[in-house]
Amino acid sequence: MAPLIVATRNEHKLRELREALRGVDLEPLPDEFVLPPEDGETFEANALGKAHAAQEATGRAVMADDSGIAARGLNGRPGIRSARFAGEGASDEENLLKLLDEVERAGDRRVAYVCAIAYVSEDGSEQTFEARCEGELIPQPRGEGGFGYDPAFLPDDTGPGDERTMAELSPAEKHAISHRGKAARMLAAHLEAGG
Amino acid sequence: MAPLIVATRNEHKLRELREALRGVDLEPLPDEFVLPPEDGETFEANALGKAHAAQEATGRAVMADDSGIAARGLNGRPGIRSARFAGEGASDEENLLKLLDEVERAGDRRVAYVCAIAYVSEDGSEQTFEARCEGELIPQPRGEGGFGYDPAFLPDDTGPGDERTMAELSPAEKHAISHRGKAARMLAAHLEAGG
Repeated sequence: MAPLIVATRNEHKLRELREALRGVDLEPLPDEFVLPPEDGETFEANALGKAHAAQEATGRAVMADDSGIAARGLNGRPGIRSARFAGEGASDEENLLKLLDEVERAGDRRVAYVCAIAYVSEDGSEQTFEARCEGELIPQPRGEGGFGYDPAFLPDDTGPGDERTMAELSPAEKHAISHRGKAARMLAAHLEAGG
Repeated sequence: MAPLIVATRNEHKLRELREALRGVDLEPLPDEFVLPPEDGETFEANALGKAHAAQEATGRAVMADDSGIAARGLNGRPGIRSARFAGEGASDEENLLKLLDEVERAGDRRVAYVCAIAYVSEDGSEQTFEARCEGELIPQPRGEGGFGYDPAFLPDDTGPGDERTMAELSPAEKHAISHRGKAARMLAAHLEAGG
Protein backbone atom coordinates (compact mmCIF):
# COMPACT_ATOMS: atom_id res chain seq x y z
CA MET A 1 0.00 0.00 0.00
CA ALA A 2 1.27 3.51 -0.84
CA PRO A 3 2.03 5.71 2.17
CA LEU A 4 -1.01 7.43 3.63
CA ILE A 5 -0.91 11.22 3.37
CA VAL A 6 -1.57 13.11 6.61
CA ALA A 7 -3.40 16.36 5.90
CA THR A 8 -1.85 18.51 8.62
CA ARG A 9 0.71 21.26 9.08
CA ASN A 10 1.03 20.42 12.78
CA GLU A 11 4.32 18.64 13.43
CA HIS A 12 3.18 17.46 16.87
CA LYS A 13 0.17 15.69 15.39
CA LEU A 14 2.20 14.08 12.62
CA ARG A 15 4.74 12.77 15.13
CA GLU A 16 2.05 11.41 17.45
CA LEU A 17 0.19 9.73 14.62
CA ARG A 18 3.43 8.09 13.47
CA GLU A 19 4.15 6.86 16.99
CA ALA A 20 0.60 5.56 17.46
CA LEU A 21 0.36 3.95 14.00
CA ARG A 22 3.63 2.06 13.86
CA GLY A 23 2.40 -0.38 11.22
CA VAL A 24 1.15 2.34 8.85
CA ASP A 25 3.46 4.33 6.57
CA LEU A 26 2.56 8.04 6.84
CA GLU A 27 3.80 10.96 4.80
CA PRO A 28 3.13 14.66 5.27
CA LEU A 29 1.03 16.61 2.80
CA PRO A 30 3.39 18.11 0.19
CA ASP A 31 4.06 21.80 0.83
CA GLU A 32 2.44 23.02 -2.37
CA PHE A 33 -1.05 22.04 -1.27
CA VAL A 34 -3.05 24.53 0.77
CA LEU A 35 -5.39 23.17 3.43
CA PRO A 36 -8.88 24.69 3.65
CA PRO A 37 -9.85 26.83 6.68
CA GLU A 38 -11.27 24.88 9.63
CA ASP A 39 -14.73 26.39 9.44
CA GLY A 40 -16.84 23.38 10.43
CA GLU A 41 -18.95 23.25 13.57
CA THR A 42 -17.62 19.87 14.74
CA PHE A 43 -14.29 18.07 14.97
CA GLU A 44 -15.63 15.55 12.49
CA ALA A 45 -16.60 18.19 9.92
CA ASN A 46 -13.19 19.85 10.15
CA ALA A 47 -11.31 16.57 9.82
CA LEU A 48 -13.44 15.57 6.82
CA GLY A 49 -12.93 18.98 5.20
CA LYS A 50 -9.15 18.68 5.37
CA ALA A 51 -9.09 15.04 4.30
CA HIS A 52 -11.35 15.53 1.28
CA ALA A 53 -9.46 18.62 0.13
CA ALA A 54 -6.14 16.79 0.32
CA GLN A 55 -7.52 13.68 -1.38
CA GLU A 56 -8.93 15.73 -4.24
CA ALA A 57 -5.67 17.64 -4.65
CA THR A 58 -3.43 14.58 -4.58
CA GLY A 59 -5.61 11.69 -5.76
CA ARG A 60 -4.15 9.70 -2.88
CA ALA A 61 -5.59 8.15 0.29
CA VAL A 62 -5.50 10.71 3.10
CA MET A 63 -6.11 10.97 6.81
CA ALA A 64 -6.74 14.14 8.80
CA ASP A 65 -7.18 14.86 12.50
CA ASP A 66 -9.15 17.56 14.23
CA SER A 67 -8.97 17.67 17.97
CA GLY A 68 -9.32 19.83 21.04
CA ILE A 69 -10.36 20.00 24.65
CA ALA A 70 -13.89 20.36 26.03
CA ALA A 71 -14.47 21.69 29.56
CA ARG A 72 -17.63 20.49 31.31
CA GLY A 73 -18.05 23.76 33.22
CA LEU A 74 -17.79 25.75 29.98
CA ASN A 75 -20.40 23.74 28.08
CA GLY A 76 -17.76 22.06 25.97
CA ARG A 77 -15.68 25.13 25.15
CA PRO A 78 -13.09 25.73 23.78
CA GLY A 79 -13.79 22.60 21.67
CA ILE A 80 -13.02 23.15 18.00
CA ARG A 81 -11.48 26.52 18.92
CA SER A 82 -8.88 24.99 21.29
CA ALA A 83 -5.87 25.96 19.15
CA ARG A 84 -6.95 29.62 19.01
CA PHE A 85 -8.76 29.97 22.33
CA ALA A 86 -6.68 33.00 23.36
CA GLY A 87 -6.83 34.44 19.83
CA GLU A 88 -5.47 33.70 16.36
CA GLY A 89 -1.80 32.71 16.58
CA ALA A 90 -1.94 32.24 20.36
CA SER A 91 0.72 29.99 21.89
CA ASP A 92 -0.07 26.76 23.72
CA GLU A 93 0.80 28.50 26.97
CA GLU A 94 -1.53 31.45 26.33
CA ASN A 95 -4.41 29.11 25.48
CA LEU A 96 -3.72 27.01 28.56
CA LEU A 97 -3.61 29.98 30.93
CA LYS A 98 -6.90 31.27 29.56
CA LEU A 99 -8.54 27.87 30.00
CA LEU A 100 -7.23 27.48 33.56
CA ASP A 101 -8.60 30.91 34.41
CA GLU A 102 -12.06 30.21 32.95
CA VAL A 103 -12.29 26.74 34.46
CA GLU A 104 -11.31 28.08 37.87
CA ARG A 105 -14.07 30.66 37.71
CA ALA A 106 -16.59 28.05 36.56
CA GLY A 107 -15.63 25.85 39.52
CA ASP A 108 -15.49 22.62 37.51
CA ARG A 109 -12.17 21.12 36.44
CA ARG A 110 -13.53 18.15 34.47
CA VAL A 111 -12.37 18.13 30.85
CA ALA A 112 -12.15 15.75 27.93
CA TYR A 113 -9.76 15.72 25.03
CA VAL A 114 -11.59 14.82 21.81
CA CYS A 115 -10.06 13.65 18.52
CA ALA A 116 -11.83 13.04 15.23
CA ILE A 117 -9.88 11.29 12.51
CA ALA A 118 -11.19 11.27 8.96
CA TYR A 119 -9.97 8.81 6.36
CA VAL A 120 -10.67 9.37 2.68
CA SER A 121 -9.61 6.60 0.33
CA GLU A 122 -8.14 7.08 -3.14
CA ASP A 123 -11.61 6.86 -4.66
CA GLY A 124 -13.02 9.51 -2.29
CA SER A 125 -15.03 7.32 0.08
CA GLU A 126 -14.88 8.50 3.71
CA GLN A 127 -14.79 7.01 7.20
CA THR A 128 -14.53 8.79 10.54
CA PHE A 129 -13.40 7.76 14.02
CA GLU A 130 -13.85 9.81 17.17
CA ALA A 131 -12.50 9.17 20.65
CA ARG A 132 -12.28 10.97 23.98
CA CYS A 133 -9.81 11.02 26.84
CA GLU A 134 -11.34 12.04 30.16
CA GLY A 135 -9.53 13.86 32.92
CA GLU A 136 -9.26 16.99 34.99
CA LEU A 137 -7.19 20.15 34.83
CA ILE A 138 -4.70 20.96 37.55
CA PRO A 139 -3.91 24.59 38.40
CA GLN A 140 -0.10 24.20 38.22
CA PRO A 141 0.99 22.78 34.83
CA ARG A 142 3.99 20.44 34.83
CA GLY A 143 5.89 18.18 32.43
CA GLU A 144 7.72 18.63 29.15
CA GLY A 145 6.14 15.99 26.89
CA GLY A 146 3.20 16.22 24.53
CA PHE A 147 1.79 19.61 23.50
CA GLY A 148 -1.27 21.81 23.81
CA TYR A 149 -3.03 21.46 27.15
CA ASP A 150 -1.04 18.35 28.20
CA PRO A 151 0.92 19.95 31.10
CA ALA A 152 -2.34 20.64 32.98
CA PHE A 153 -4.25 17.52 31.92
CA LEU A 154 -4.48 14.77 34.53
CA PRO A 155 -5.90 11.72 32.68
CA ASP A 156 -8.27 9.32 34.44
CA ASP A 157 -6.71 6.30 32.73
CA THR A 158 -3.41 5.75 34.48
CA GLY A 159 -2.97 3.89 37.74
CA PRO A 160 -4.60 4.56 41.10
CA GLY A 161 -2.42 7.17 42.77
CA ASP A 162 -0.63 8.03 39.52
CA GLU A 163 -0.67 11.84 39.50
CA ARG A 164 1.31 12.38 36.30
CA THR A 165 -0.03 14.86 33.77
CA MET A 166 -0.27 13.96 30.11
CA ALA A 167 2.99 15.91 29.62
CA GLU A 168 4.73 13.67 32.18
CA LEU A 169 3.81 10.37 30.50
CA SER A 170 6.16 8.76 28.00
CA PRO A 171 4.96 8.96 24.39
CA ALA A 172 3.95 5.27 24.48
CA GLU A 173 1.98 5.80 27.70
CA LYS A 174 0.23 8.84 26.29
CA HIS A 175 -0.78 7.07 23.08
CA ALA A 176 -1.98 4.01 25.05
CA ILE A 177 -4.83 6.05 26.53
CA SER A 178 -5.11 9.27 24.53
CA HIS A 179 -8.00 10.45 22.35
CA ARG A 180 -5.63 10.53 19.32
CA GLY A 181 -4.13 7.11 20.08
CA LYS A 182 -7.57 5.50 20.30
CA ALA A 183 -8.94 7.11 17.14
CA ALA A 184 -5.72 6.29 15.25
CA ARG A 185 -5.88 2.62 16.31
CA MET A 186 -9.51 2.42 15.18
CA LEU A 187 -8.35 3.67 11.78
CA ALA A 188 -5.47 1.17 11.76
CA ALA A 189 -7.89 -1.68 12.53
CA HIS A 190 -10.12 -0.48 9.70
CA LEU A 191 -7.17 -0.41 7.27
CA GLU A 192 -5.96 -3.84 8.40
CA ALA A 193 -9.43 -5.23 7.76
CA GLY A 194 -9.15 -4.03 4.16
CA GLY A 195 -10.17 -0.37 4.47
CA MET B 1 13.03 -11.51 28.95
CA ALA B 2 11.24 -14.65 30.18
CA PRO B 3 7.55 -14.86 29.30
CA LEU B 4 5.28 -12.97 31.67
CA ILE B 5 2.86 -15.18 33.59
CA VAL B 6 -0.80 -14.13 33.47
CA ALA B 7 -2.55 -14.97 36.74
CA THR B 8 -5.97 -15.82 35.38
CA ARG B 9 -8.17 -18.83 34.66
CA ASN B 10 -10.27 -16.77 32.25
CA GLU B 11 -9.49 -17.79 28.66
CA HIS B 12 -11.19 -14.65 27.28
CA LYS B 13 -8.93 -12.37 29.29
CA LEU B 14 -5.79 -14.29 28.34
CA ARG B 15 -6.69 -14.10 24.65
CA GLU B 16 -7.47 -10.36 24.81
CA LEU B 17 -4.27 -9.60 26.69
CA ARG B 18 -2.28 -11.52 24.08
CA GLU B 19 -3.99 -9.61 21.26
CA ALA B 20 -3.47 -6.24 22.97
CA LEU B 21 0.14 -6.94 24.00
CA ARG B 22 1.58 -8.25 20.76
CA GLY B 23 5.16 -7.41 21.70
CA VAL B 24 5.00 -9.18 25.08
CA ASP B 25 5.31 -12.94 25.48
CA LEU B 26 2.56 -14.16 27.84
CA GLU B 27 2.04 -17.57 29.35
CA PRO B 28 -0.85 -18.87 31.44
CA LEU B 29 -0.42 -19.66 35.11
CA PRO B 30 0.48 -23.37 35.39
CA ASP B 31 -2.52 -25.50 36.41
CA GLU B 32 -1.04 -26.61 39.73
CA PHE B 33 -1.21 -23.14 41.25
CA VAL B 34 -4.42 -22.08 42.98
CA LEU B 35 -5.44 -18.45 42.73
CA PRO B 36 -6.68 -16.75 45.91
CA PRO B 37 -10.35 -15.72 46.23
CA GLU B 38 -11.16 -12.25 44.90
CA ASP B 39 -12.10 -10.78 48.26
CA GLY B 40 -10.78 -7.24 47.82
CA GLU B 41 -12.99 -4.17 47.78
CA THR B 42 -11.50 -2.71 44.59
CA PHE B 43 -10.39 -3.92 41.17
CA GLU B 44 -6.88 -2.88 42.06
CA ALA B 45 -6.83 -4.88 45.30
CA ASN B 46 -8.12 -8.00 43.54
CA ALA B 47 -5.60 -7.71 40.72
CA LEU B 48 -2.76 -7.20 43.20
CA GLY B 49 -3.92 -10.17 45.28
CA LYS B 50 -3.79 -12.51 42.31
CA ALA B 51 -0.52 -11.15 40.96
CA HIS B 52 1.32 -11.34 44.30
CA ALA B 53 0.05 -14.87 45.01
CA ALA B 54 1.20 -16.08 41.59
CA GLN B 55 4.56 -14.30 41.87
CA GLU B 56 5.20 -15.85 45.29
CA ALA B 57 4.22 -19.32 44.05
CA THR B 58 6.31 -19.19 40.87
CA GLY B 59 9.12 -16.72 41.59
CA ARG B 60 8.41 -15.25 38.18
CA ALA B 61 7.16 -11.87 36.94
CA VAL B 62 3.36 -11.90 36.80
CA MET B 63 0.48 -9.79 35.60
CA ALA B 64 -3.16 -10.05 36.68
CA ASP B 65 -6.34 -8.32 35.58
CA ASP B 66 -9.48 -7.54 37.53
CA SER B 67 -12.26 -5.87 35.67
CA GLY B 68 -15.97 -5.27 35.52
CA ILE B 69 -18.73 -2.87 34.66
CA ALA B 70 -20.01 0.06 36.74
CA ALA B 71 -23.48 1.48 36.13
CA ARG B 72 -23.97 5.16 37.01
CA GLY B 73 -27.59 4.65 38.01
CA LEU B 74 -26.62 1.81 40.35
CA ASN B 75 -23.88 3.74 42.16
CA GLY B 76 -21.17 1.76 40.40
CA ARG B 77 -22.67 -1.70 40.82
CA PRO B 78 -22.04 -4.47 39.85
CA GLY B 79 -18.37 -3.37 39.84
CA ILE B 80 -16.09 -6.00 41.31
CA ARG B 81 -19.05 -8.39 41.41
CA SER B 82 -19.70 -8.19 37.64
CA ALA B 83 -18.78 -11.82 36.95
CA ARG B 84 -21.18 -13.10 39.61
CA PHE B 85 -23.88 -10.41 39.53
CA ALA B 86 -26.68 -12.96 39.01
CA GLY B 87 -25.10 -15.37 41.51
CA GLU B 88 -22.05 -17.63 41.80
CA GLY B 89 -21.50 -19.49 38.55
CA ALA B 90 -23.94 -17.30 36.61
CA SER B 91 -23.47 -17.16 32.85
CA ASP B 92 -22.58 -13.98 30.94
CA GLU B 93 -26.14 -13.90 29.62
CA GLU B 94 -27.71 -14.19 33.08
CA ASN B 95 -25.53 -11.40 34.42
CA LEU B 96 -26.32 -9.22 31.42
CA LEU B 97 -30.08 -9.72 31.68
CA LYS B 98 -30.00 -8.83 35.37
CA LEU B 99 -28.00 -5.66 34.67
CA LEU B 100 -30.30 -4.60 31.82
CA ASP B 101 -33.29 -5.06 34.11
CA GLU B 102 -31.78 -3.03 36.97
CA VAL B 103 -30.49 -0.28 34.70
CA GLU B 104 -33.88 0.01 33.03
CA ARG B 105 -35.57 0.45 36.40
CA ALA B 106 -32.95 3.02 37.48
CA GLY B 107 -33.61 4.99 34.27
CA ASP B 108 -29.92 5.62 33.54
CA ARG B 109 -28.08 3.62 30.90
CA ARG B 110 -24.61 5.17 31.36
CA VAL B 111 -21.97 2.59 32.22
CA ALA B 112 -18.20 2.26 32.27
CA TYR B 113 -16.05 -0.80 31.91
CA VAL B 114 -13.12 -0.67 34.34
CA CYS B 115 -9.91 -2.70 34.21
CA ALA B 116 -7.11 -2.79 36.77
CA ILE B 117 -3.91 -4.55 35.77
CA ALA B 118 -1.33 -5.39 38.41
CA TYR B 119 2.25 -6.21 37.55
CA VAL B 120 4.54 -7.86 40.09
CA SER B 121 8.15 -8.26 39.09
CA GLU B 122 10.34 -11.24 39.91
CA ASP B 123 11.57 -9.50 43.05
CA GLY B 124 8.03 -8.76 44.25
CA SER B 125 7.77 -5.04 43.49
CA GLU B 126 4.34 -3.97 42.24
CA GLN B 127 2.83 -1.53 39.77
CA THR B 128 -0.82 -1.00 38.87
CA PHE B 129 -2.62 0.49 35.87
CA GLU B 130 -6.32 1.27 35.70
CA ALA B 131 -8.40 2.39 32.75
CA ARG B 132 -12.05 2.94 31.90
CA CYS B 133 -14.14 2.62 28.77
CA GLU B 134 -17.26 4.78 28.80
CA GLY B 135 -20.51 3.92 27.08
CA GLU B 136 -24.17 3.08 27.43
CA LEU B 137 -26.18 -0.09 27.58
CA ILE B 138 -28.70 -0.89 24.86
CA PRO B 139 -31.81 -2.94 25.67
CA GLN B 140 -31.37 -5.44 22.79
CA PRO B 141 -27.92 -7.10 22.92
CA ARG B 142 -26.28 -7.92 19.59
CA GLY B 143 -22.97 -9.21 18.23
CA GLU B 144 -20.86 -12.33 18.68
CA GLY B 145 -17.44 -10.93 19.60
CA GLY B 146 -15.91 -10.20 22.99
CA PHE B 147 -17.50 -11.58 26.16
CA GLY B 148 -19.27 -10.48 29.33
CA TYR B 149 -21.47 -7.44 28.84
CA ASP B 150 -20.09 -6.63 25.36
CA PRO B 151 -23.27 -7.39 23.35
CA ALA B 152 -25.14 -4.59 25.17
CA PHE B 153 -22.25 -2.14 25.51
CA LEU B 154 -22.23 0.78 23.07
CA PRO B 155 -18.82 2.46 23.48
CA ASP B 156 -18.47 6.25 23.17
CA ASP B 157 -15.14 5.93 21.36
CA THR B 158 -16.01 4.80 17.86
CA GLY B 159 -17.09 7.12 15.07
CA PRO B 160 -19.99 9.54 14.98
CA GLY B 161 -23.00 7.48 13.91
CA ASP B 162 -21.21 4.19 14.56
CA GLU B 163 -23.80 2.18 16.49
CA ARG B 164 -21.85 -1.05 16.85
CA THR B 165 -21.72 -2.71 20.25
CA MET B 166 -18.44 -3.87 21.72
CA ALA B 167 -19.40 -7.39 20.56
CA GLU B 168 -19.71 -6.14 16.96
CA LEU B 169 -16.22 -4.57 16.80
CA SER B 170 -13.29 -6.56 15.49
CA PRO B 171 -10.80 -7.63 18.19
CA ALA B 172 -8.35 -4.92 17.04
CA GLU B 173 -11.06 -2.27 17.19
CA LYS B 174 -12.15 -3.39 20.65
CA HIS B 175 -8.61 -3.33 22.03
CA ALA B 176 -7.95 0.09 20.46
CA ILE B 177 -10.45 1.70 22.83
CA SER B 178 -11.22 -0.82 25.59
CA HIS B 179 -10.46 -0.54 29.30
CA ARG B 180 -8.31 -3.69 29.07
CA GLY B 181 -6.48 -2.53 25.92
CA LYS B 182 -5.58 0.79 27.52
CA ALA B 183 -4.39 -0.68 30.82
CA ALA B 184 -2.43 -3.38 28.97
CA ARG B 185 -0.69 -0.81 26.77
CA MET B 186 0.22 1.23 29.86
CA LEU B 187 1.86 -1.91 31.25
CA ALA B 188 3.62 -2.55 27.93
CA ALA B 189 5.00 1.00 27.91
CA HIS B 190 6.21 0.49 31.49
CA LEU B 191 7.96 -2.76 30.53
CA GLU B 192 9.50 -1.22 27.41
CA ALA B 193 10.89 1.59 29.56
CA GLY B 194 12.70 -1.02 31.67
CA GLY B 195 9.94 -2.11 34.06
